[in-house]
Amino acid sequence: MDDFAYMRQAMELAEQAAALGEIPVGALVVQDATGEVLGRGYNRREVDHDPTAHAEVLAIRQAALAIGSWRLSGCTLYVTLEPCPMCCGTIINARVRRVVFGAYDSKAGSADSVINLFALPYNHKPAVTGGLLEDACKEQLQRFFSGLREK
Amino acid sequence: MDDFAYMRQAMELAEQAAALGEIPVGALVVQDATGEVLGRGYNRREVDHDPTAHAEVLAIRQAALAIGSWRLSGCTLYVTLEPCPMCCGTIINARVRRVVFGAYDSKAGSADSVINLFALPYNHKPAVTGGLLEDACKEQLQRFFSGLREK
Repeated sequence: MDDFAYMRQAMELAEQAAALGEIPVGALVVQDATGEVLGRGYNRREVDHDPTAHAEVLAIRQAALAIGSWRLSGCTLYVTLEPCPMCCGTIINARVRRVVFGAYDSKAGSADSVINLFALPYNHKPAVTGGLLEDACKEQLQRFFSGLREK
Repeated sequence: MDDFAYMRQAMELAEQAAALGEIPVGALVVQDATGEVLGRGYNRREVDHDPTAHAEVLAIRQAALAIGSWRLSGCTLYVTLEPCPMCCGTIINARVRRVVFGAYDSKAGSADSVINLFALPYNHKPAVTGGLLEDACKEQLQRFFSGLREK
């Protein structure tokens, strides 16, 4: 499986968020050595009444439970939207080796847009690929927001 | 109750983390209007295999569940150690009104030390008081680490 195939899976997870009326963001954590998906998440902030229930956090927590360790140093995170400061911090804390994101987020994105938190002197710096399937991920978000406006 | 009394409660929570062999950090979320403690947390990263199980995140999630909303705009967070980037991001996402922390953290602290994330143009800026009971909070952490060295 390549980056594009995993990102398409993350986009499918984002559709599950949209179906709940949540902003459609999806994420998955893949074990680099095996290609196995260890964690999946989609935005559930409203339904769970949980400010931390972003796709990335849920996927990372599930993956850490799956391997029985908070250290995901052999893993890649795929997410349809540039991570916010909370999610960038979670990526740092979990020592995620590599991050691949789709659309950029000019308001909260913290892997490039508002700031690049991964360039600061914390104790871990993941590799980052931004803008993978950018247009498709952006359209998925825009479709959701134009649907809201029509209601 | 005043800030000092709440911080002492956070320090008691930190002792519960130490008893589990976890770095002793404790946090609580207080409703400003009533003084009620809505959420309590202490570091459980190792025991829970959860990279997000910092004191602040656990206290914030518990408080949000208690009021049935991710928005903690009428609340103050007390924490014994300066929040890391993940926890600062969680504070922003949960719209916590005010943050009071004890010891500074030169390695990961992101409310002042490495960077002040609350000064960046995100959609929420909490009020911050740093260094409350700083020496006591610092000693609590140092006591834990010197205990480890003696083992």
